Amino acid sequence: MICVPEISSISHQEISLLKPITGYPYNLDFDYGALAQLQHFSINNLGDPFIESNYGVHSRQFEVGVLDWFARLWELEKNEYWGYITNCGTEGNLHGILVGREVFPDGILYASWESHYSVFKAARMYRMECVKVDTLISGEIDCEDFKAKLFTNKNKPAIINVNIGTTVKGAVDDLDLVIQTLEESGFTHDRFYIHCDGALFGLMMPFVKRAPKVTFKKPIGSVSVSGHKFVGCPMPCGVQITRLEHINALSRNVEYLASRDATIMGCRNGHAPIFLWYTLNRKGYRGFQKEVQKCLRNAYYLKDRIRAAGIGAMLNELSSTVVFERPQDEEFVRRWQLACQGNIAHIVVMPNITIEKLDDFLEELVHKRSIWFQDGKVQAPCIAADVGKENCGCALHK
Amino acid sequence: MICVPEISSISHQEISLLKPITGYPYNLDFDYGALAQLQHFSINNLGDPFIESNYGVHSRQFEVGVLDWFARLWELEKNEYWGYITNCGTEGNLHGILVGREVFPDGILYASWESHYSVFKAARMYRMECVKVDTLISGEIDCEDFKAKLFTNKNKPAIINVNIGTTVKGAVDDLDLVIQTLEESGFTHDRFYIHCDGALFGLMMPFVKRAPKVTFKKPIGSVSVSGHKFVGCPMPCGVQITRLEHINALSRNVEYLASRDATIMGCRNGHAPIFLWYTLNRKGYRGFQKEVQKCLRNAYYLKDRIRAAGIGAMLNELSSTVVFERPQDEEFVRRWQLACQGNIAHIVVMPNITIEKLDDFLEELVHKRSIWFQDGKVQAPCIAADVGKENCGCALHK
Repeated sequence: MICVPEISSISHQEISLLKPITGYPYNLDFDYGALAQLQHFSINNLGDPFIESNYGVHSRQFEVGVLDWFARLWELEKNEYWGYITNCGTEGNLHGILVGREVFPDGILYASWESHYSVFKAARMYRMECVKVDTLISGEIDCEDFKAKLFTNKNKPAIINVNIGTTVKGAVDDLDLVIQTLEESGFTHDRFYIHCDGALFGLMMPFVKRAPKVTFKKPIGSVSVSGHKFVGCPMPCGVQITRLEHINALSRNVEYLASRDATIMGCRNGHAPIFLWYTLNRKGYRGFQKEVQKCLRNAYYLKDRIRAAGIGAMLNELSSTVVFERPQDEEFVRRWQLACQGNIAHIVVMPNITIEKLDDFLEELVHKRSIWFQDGKVQAPCIAADVGKENCGCALHK
Repeated sequence: MICVPEISSISHQEISLLKPITGYPYNLDFDYGALAQLQHFSINNLGDPFIESNYGVHSRQFEVGVLDWFARLWELEKNEYWGYITNCGTEGNLHGILVGREVFPDGILYASWESHYSVFKAARMYRMECVKVDTLISGEIDCEDFKAKLFTNKNKPAIINVNIGTTVKGAVDDLDLVIQTLEESGFTHDRFYIHCDGALFGLMMPFVKRAPKVTFKKPIGSVSVSGHKFVGCPMPCGVQITRLEHINALSRNVEYLASRDATIMGCRNGHAPIFLWYTLNRKGYRGFQKEVQKCLRNAYYLKDRIRAAGIGAMLNELSSTVVFERPQDEEFVRRWQLACQGNIAHIVVMPNITIEKLDDFLEELVHKRSIWFQDGKVQAPCIAADVGKENCGCALHK
């Protein structure tokens, strides 16, 4: 009746032909003893995590435990925060920007060009005026341009998406400079709302020494982070934290759920909070710190080796995302699961990536390049516009 | 560091204290041999199901298999449909209504008062004008009122949410009458968009003999259904099917995903399509038919027994949702996981509910009522306004 392969054909063997080197840890090391048992139950965290609903098979106490951990990480008091575990980074952005719009119904959404596509999708869904702001070569928001654009829209409140790690270059927007720019442009704290999209790097940055701090002690409205990237949850999920005071603007009671409707989704995966809680407990703050250090070390190693091989590459100081010249061969891109944009590709170095894997990758890349470029007819592309002249490996700049 | 219970404390024992009788089959009978293996992989169906993205550990071929099955069920040709597996019924409604709004940017959203709360959330999120339409006692949309409201808004296109099973009463809106009302009110097919919210009953109705047919041969735009209710998937999920022609109005290309952005969420659970596919394959059309018949039979049995015990109750002809007098005791409500609204409660009879469980429930209800109402000080509430005089069991109407 249905023409798709048998389940047994999604085999380890088939998956092992791929060598994903980026983004999502795909081979997980959870202890499945206890957790696998839970797959027999339909666990569903309907509605608001802080209000008991009438469906009893939930994992709300784990969810609130995870949220407490993140609220503490981002320095918001227990009685002052609200949040929930989302289905993915997109849901976090959709929620954060919606809260911003409900706080400032006529606010303009500002987001840099290198923001995640869900930010612009939100603007369209929510019928918000959206102003795109230029970026620096690093991928960070250009606050000079931001200032100029604020200046021409002084009469309307500002809702700003701040990237804690952009999708392609892993660039971290300078939150302090964004706030300073707003203040210098005459926007008082009651006339702007900042959502921090920390999908990837929101959870890594607290463990990086020199990184500017994401904290609710600064005038921000919400932070979101993904749970299936750095944390390695086996299903897409994320964490969204906002100020409790804002959530009242958004929510309404739903009697038949015996709950409040403040989330984007209604039924919510109840297994994800347990996986997140388990990982937070097992690794703890120190464990994450170690893993972040390993990721950054390995990313530097990779960038240095790529550069040493004469290939254009860039690594932002606060990031584990190595940007480099786009490989010429789509088969190579597919095999290593590289994400590409224009002339560049990237590798997001996650905890599951070893030095050996990076060496394998580099060896194959160098070998393949010698074939692609052997007769001189095809040349390595110039990526100076993407990564700066000093990081480019093209004939002109190297 | 985190103050929540140990994983081992979510035990079978604790869950078994609850006796959920409604909505979500919580104790699943999947064969976990093959499926449990897959939990070791982070399976992620990024972006559009019909376009290969750059993340290779996906279950897109299962997803498309499931979508094909549903497109065939609802009679839309393979090259004319688009769809995806959502995170829940809410995402289906958010998507369907968004497609409607993109097709008719100045359209008015019409939905009956008994529509799911996500429909009104969509209107608010999307900044759409929303007109609430009255319902009949059954819970169905009142097409007389619909006509009157269309009449006062003739100048704007209509986007209509049609309920294939309302949340509380399981009422099925009369799709044919809705279309007829639109036509009689001068709305030609190019001036309205119908989204069918079939969260619960969308998958059951095709197997009910006398039920009006949900089919794309009628002028409808989209249908959504939940996967964790009747189908019994262990994680919240749903299926959304729409016309391919509409999706171009909504989508944009996202280069770094090598995909198209036509879904609400970005990362999408890759395990859900496999569970859905497995169930469709294992049970098949005939299996579902049998289960639907069993649910309807059991629902009739329950309604008849409740009425025979002198208690007010109603069961819509095309539904397995039994509505009855709200129990007086919150502990009883919690133990049986009943959803309540005003003076009524409901039981959604799903395939996992046996006659024995229904008998247990009724026995306990009758026993408890004899305590609640023993001294005559408290009387059974009148629910005539909710279920009609003929179905009420109060002192006045019985």
